[in-house]
Amino acid sequence: MRKFYIKPVNNRLEGQLTQKIDFKTKPPGSLGALENLAKKIGMMQGRLNPGLRNPTIVVFAGDHGAAADGISAFPQEVTHQMVFNFLNQGAAINVFCRQHNIGLKVVDAGVNFDFEDAHALIHSKIAKGTQNYLREPAMSPEQCDRAITHGAKIVEKIAEEDSNIIGFGEMGIGNTSSASLLMSKICNLPLEDCVGRGTGLDDDQLDRKIQLLKGAIRLHETNNAFEILRTFGGFEMAMMCGAMLAAAEKEMIILVDGFIATSVFLAANRMEPDIKGYALFCHQSDEQGHEKMLGYLGADPILKMGLRLGEGTGCALAYPIIQSAVAFLNDMASFDAAGVSNKE
Amino acid sequence: MRKFYIKPVNNRLEGQLTQKIDFKTKPPGSLGALENLAKKIGMMQGRLNPGLRNPTIVVFAGDHGAAADGISAFPQEVTHQMVFNFLNQGAAINVFCRQHNIGLKVVDAGVNFDFEDAHALIHSKIAKGTQNYLREPAMSPEQCDRAITHGAKIVEKIAEEDSNIIGFGEMGIGNTSSASLLMSKICNLPLEDCVGRGTGLDDDQLDRKIQLLKGAIRLHETNNAFEILRTFGGFEMAMMCGAMLAAAEKEMIILVDGFIATSVFLAANRMEPDIKGYALFCHQSDEQGHEKMLGYLGADPILKMGLRLGEGTGCALAYPIIQSAVAFLNDMASFDAAGVSNKE
Repeated sequence: MRKFYIKPVNNRLEGQLTQKIDFKTKPPGSLGALENLAKKIGMMQGRLNPGLRNPTIVVFAGDHGAAADGISAFPQEVTHQMVFNFLNQGAAINVFCRQHNIGLKVVDAGVNFDFEDAHALIHSKIAKGTQNYLREPAMSPEQCDRAITHGAKIVEKIAEEDSNIIGFGEMGIGNTSSASLLMSKICNLPLEDCVGRGTGLDDDQLDRKIQLLKGAIRLHETNNAFEILRTFGGFEMAMMCGAMLAAAEKEMIILVDGFIATSVFLAANRMEPDIKGYALFCHQSDEQGHEKMLGYLGADPILKMGLRLGEGTGCALAYPIIQSAVAFLNDMASFDAAGVSNKE
Repeated sequence: MRKFYIKPVNNRLEGQLTQKIDFKTKPPGSLGALENLAKKIGMMQGRLNPGLRNPTIVVFAGDHGAAADGISAFPQEVTHQMVFNFLNQGAAINVFCRQHNIGLKVVDAGVNFDFEDAHALIHSKIAKGTQNYLREPAMSPEQCDRAITHGAKIVEKIAEEDSNIIGFGEMGIGNTSSASLLMSKICNLPLEDCVGRGTGLDDDQLDRKIQLLKGAIRLHETNNAFEILRTFGGFEMAMMCGAMLAAAEKEMIILVDGFIATSVFLAANRMEPDIKGYALFCHQSDEQGHEKMLGYLGADPILKMGLRLGEGTGCALAYPIIQSAVAFLNDMASFDAAGVSNKE
C-alpha cells in the first residue's frame, strides 16, 4: 500500500489560540464547542487566523457482494439509482451542499452499473461490486490498494483546486454491515455492540444480520487495518480511506460523517494515527454503535440530531457551525479593542 | 396588560407533512431532528411548502438593580459597553448574523446609559435600570406593561417588513439571576436547581448568589406570570416577553435562545400557552438549569454545544439547520420523481 506522510498538527499553538479566544468580548468558555473547533482548526493550519476555502464533499458509491444476502432493507439497485439522484440534484446531500455553497463530487468507486459521463461524476470503478465476504474477502489486496490510491488521487486534485476543507460521504446498499465489521475488528468489541438497523431493519432482520456477520468474522482471520478493510469493506470505503489519508497529508480539514465514514476513519486512523489531528467529527448518528465508535476515538461530535442517512449529509449540516468557529476567531472584537471591561 | 390573540398552529397538517417527508429519497426518519423541524414549521405556516423570509434577531439590553449586589462576575457597565460592541459589529452575535444574512436590531430596553442614535439601535428605554428585587419589585406594574407593549410593537414593525422568522437575544449584567428566579417560580423548582454560574462565578460566589436569591423569593409573594416577570425580571426580559407574544400573534417562527430567553419564554408560555407551537428551541446551554427548563417545556433543542453567551447567539448558530429543514422539505426529490426503489 502507498505510504502517506502526515505531518502532526501544530499543538504548540494551542496556548496562543486559547489566549486569543479568551480576549474576545465574551466570558471565557462561553462559546463552548465552537472554541474547541476554532483551536483545532488553528492547530491544523498552524495559524492564529485560519481560513476555509472551497469546501468540497466527495460521495463514494459502491456495491457490496454481501447485499444479496438480505443484510439491508433496500434492494441493491438503489445504489445506482441514488447515484442518478445525486447527479440530478435530488438527494439530501445536493440540497445541503447548494445551501452552503459546498462543491459536490460523486465517485463511482464500484457500482454494479455502467454510468455515462456526467458533470459531477468521477469514473473510478474498481469492479462492479465487491465479492461477498460471507464466502471470501470482499476485495483482493490489489483491488483494495488500487481503491486507496484512486481515493488519494481524487483528493490531491481537489487540493490543487485550492480546497482546504473536505467531507466524505458514501452510498452503497449493505455498507452499514461492512462498517459494523470494521468497528468490531478494530475496536475489539462484540458484534452485538456494533450492528444496528441500518436504513430500517426490523427485529427479526436485525437478528439474522448479526448471525450472518458473526459467520463472516469466524470465516476470516484478519488482523491489520488494511486486511480488515479489504476483507469486509466496500470499494467506496477503501477509496474513502485513501481519500482521508491524502487529505491529512495535504493538511486539509477532514469532515467525518456518520457510522460508515467513521468506520473508515477507524481504519485510516489505525494506519496513520496522525490523521486524527485533521478530523472534525460532524455528528453522532442515530445508528447504534456510532456513539461507541466516537467514544473509542475520543471524538466530540458537533451535532447530535439523530441522523442516519450517510451521503455526507452530516458534514454538510455541520459545515456552517465550523464556519462560525473560524468566523468568531477571526472577526470578533477583543475586550481592549471594543473598550469592554473584563471580568472583575 | 395587552391581550395577545394567538392562533393555534395547524396540527391537522401533520399527517400530510409526514407523508411528504416519507416519500423523499431517503430511509424514513433518517434525517432525524430535521424532519421534526420541517413538520413544526409546516404546521406553523399551515403549508406543505413553508418558507423563511428575512430572518431577524432582536437583542434587548437592560440593567438590573440587583447587579450592584455582586450576583455577576462582570461589572454593570459591561451592559452598555456591549451595546456599543453590538453597534460596532464586534460581538459574537454580529459575526454570526453577518455569516447567515440575519438582520440584527439592538434595543435599549433600559440600560443605565444615554445612547446617541445609531443605525441598528432602537431607543425604547423604560428607565435606567430596574429596581433591586432584593428590596422591592424590579418594575412597577406600569413599567412592565409598557415594556411588554414596546416589545410587541418592535416585532409588529419587523413583521411588516416581511420577516417571518425572528430570534431574541439579551444583554444585561445580572440577568441570569432574574432567569433563575423566573424558573424557580414558574417551574416550581427549588432555587438550587435553577441557579448557575452565569458568565463565570466561582463556588463561593455561587453560594452567596443562592442565599441572596432565596431572600428575594421570601420577600415577594407573587403568583401569576406577569407578577413574577415584573418582580424579578429586567426591562429587556419584559420587552422580550411582549416581543415573543407578538411574534406568535403574527404567526412568525420564534427562535428561543438560551437560559435567559427560555426563562422569558416560560413566562410568555404561562400567559398564552398557544405560543409554544411557534417556538423552536435553538440550543441547550451549558448553564445548569437550562436542561431542566427545556424538560419542563417538553422542548427538544436543536444544538447542544455548551454555549452560555446569550445575545441570541444560539439562534443565529441554529438558523442554518432550520434552513436545511425547510430546504429538504421543499427541494429533495421523491422516490417516484427520482426513479429510486423504496424499501422492500
